[in-house]
Amino acid sequence: MDSVVPLLQRAETVYIATHISPDGDAIGSSLGLALSLGAMGKRCTVACADPAPPSLSFLPGVRMIVARPPAGQDVIVALDTGDTSRLGALYAPKAFHGRPVINIDHHLTNTRFGTINVIDPQAAAVGEMMCTLTAALGVSLNSMIATCLLTAIVTDTIGFRTSSTTPRVLRAAANLMEAGASLADIVQQSFESRPLPVLRVWGNVLSNFHVRDGMAWASISRDILQQHGVKEDEIKGLVNIMRGTENVQVSALLMESADGHVKVEFRSNGHINVAEIAIALGGGGHRAASGCVLAGALADAEQRVLAEIRKHSRP
Amino acid sequence: MDSVVPLLQRAETVYIATHISPDGDAIGSSLGLALSLGAMGKRCTVACADPAPPSLSFLPGVRMIVARPPAGQDVIVALDTGDTSRLGALYAPKAFHGRPVINIDHHLTNTRFGTINVIDPQAAAVGEMMCTLTAALGVSLNSMIATCLLTAIVTDTIGFRTSSTTPRVLRAAANLMEAGASLADIVQQSFESRPLPVLRVWGNVLSNFHVRDGMAWASISRDILQQHGVKEDEIKGLVNIMRGTENVQVSALLMESADGHVKVEFRSNGHINVAEIAIALGGGGHRAASGCVLAGALADAEQRVLAEIRKHSRP
Repeated sequence: MDSVVPLLQRAETVYIATHISPDGDAIGSSLGLALSLGAMGKRCTVACADPAPPSLSFLPGVRMIVARPPAGQDVIVALDTGDTSRLGALYAPKAFHGRPVINIDHHLTNTRFGTINVIDPQAAAVGEMMCTLTAALGVSLNSMIATCLLTAIVTDTIGFRTSSTTPRVLRAAANLMEAGASLADIVQQSFESRPLPVLRVWGNVLSNFHVRDGMAWASISRDILQQHGVKEDEIKGLVNIMRGTENVQVSALLMESADGHVKVEFRSNGHINVAEIAIALGGGGHRAASGCVLAGALADAEQRVLAEIRKHSRP
Repeated sequence: MDSVVPLLQRAETVYIATHISPDGDAIGSSLGLALSLGAMGKRCTVACADPAPPSLSFLPGVRMIVARPPAGQDVIVALDTGDTSRLGALYAPKAFHGRPVINIDHHLTNTRFGTINVIDPQAAAVGEMMCTLTAALGVSLNSMIATCLLTAIVTDTIGFRTSSTTPRVLRAAANLMEAGASLADIVQQSFESRPLPVLRVWGNVLSNFHVRDGMAWASISRDILQQHGVKEDEIKGLVNIMRGTENVQVSALLMESADGHVKVEFRSNGHINVAEIAIALGGGGHRAASGCVLAGALADAEQRVLAEIRKHSRP
């Protein structure tokens, strides 16, 4: 991380970009870095091709996020972004050339597209790496920065529940609480508040999902989502609960999206590497949590998903 | 806690008792203390009037728990026990007299029934207080002790999600991980593994529970439980998910037990004090999580519960 410090110290303007379909780590890390650099007197632009999800609307600075490519800033920082395609419409090759691109990520599969690449697959979240970076920059944390970075950590570890949660993560979180972040508020905002129609869809899925040979799976049709007035990206956490069924090693949740694609989420107890399953189906992710998007009908997608899981479950 | 140390150092035999319907904090703290004192050469008896729940069967030493009253041990330690009635059949007044009773607890409502009382309502779990005690005793933590104490902390904070989770709790957890406890395993054992029939009951409740005026509630009949082959004490965590419904401040889950009573669990977002609601109905607990047991029919119990919540929700 030390190589990044002088570049950021010299910059007057910084463009911070993160990945499409942004999650809490993407948005929290980006805003936390922007607020830190702002406190150092830099002008920052935070960019994401997709809007932040409503569950993150409590984060300070979330309204300053734009969907524009870089426009001549001194330095570009890409956060939590495994490859440039994950930047979506932000990635205009011309705008990325001719200036330093700092690529900070914790995905093992990162393509090292930056001029400087800081990739730490041991980090539970990019938010954890941002704690190191802000310390190296000498930024004194305030409650806004701390809230953004703790949200990044809490969301990417599902509230310290992933196997990536180390003592270092817990101590970083303790420091962020002491700097003014409210863990209880972040947990409540990020996880615990769900619209009633979303819980009705949960009820439907939990009443009907399939369990066989250590696999748990369910398909949510467009009809079910429309009947409850729920968008597929509101269904979060359910695949974790399915994975937690006794004797289940891997879970898959398929959701038919409005545009006719099928969004698939995978979770594993760590014995089966679901990143490999998702990659085989054109997606990506981590060992215990991954996803992909499939074309075609829901029933066909389910067959492809089950076949791929079986292939990777064989001893 | 310092007053406790010389008493325990002098004792050759120690009787450690915890409360009926034991949870992870009760069992984890008791076993963690017993293993620590065992490492100091003391002979310990861990006692609980009810068996440990199956979700805690992974804890080292869980099979050494007995349901007998004290029998002449040098010192009695009561953990996580608000009053002597919570000891159930363990509390034989004669057996408790004539020897030091060390009462260590974090319930604000503790009746201070010990000869020494160490009550810390700021502690998220008695397991957190045990970290202080083992340090004061000079015990070097091993992975078995650390697993018991981290389980105590993780279960009582619902995985660091309660408002009682402080930086001190996170640092204690980090130390316990470094002493050999696996946070991921504990989370998986304590929370994430649920029998499929339990999730089917979840599905039924989430499809049908009621939401009105900031309250979420549901009643699970004996029929539903029998139909799925589920015992009421297996239904854990569901009341938290109900509380997390958007705009819900307080949730109540009623379950008809085999003996004809109705077990009620309350959760709150912290604005309404559900300890008061539970106490008014003959139960007890904390501000954000409490419970009681009611006699009579399920429908009548539901009316009493709703009336009591309304009384406490009025501005």
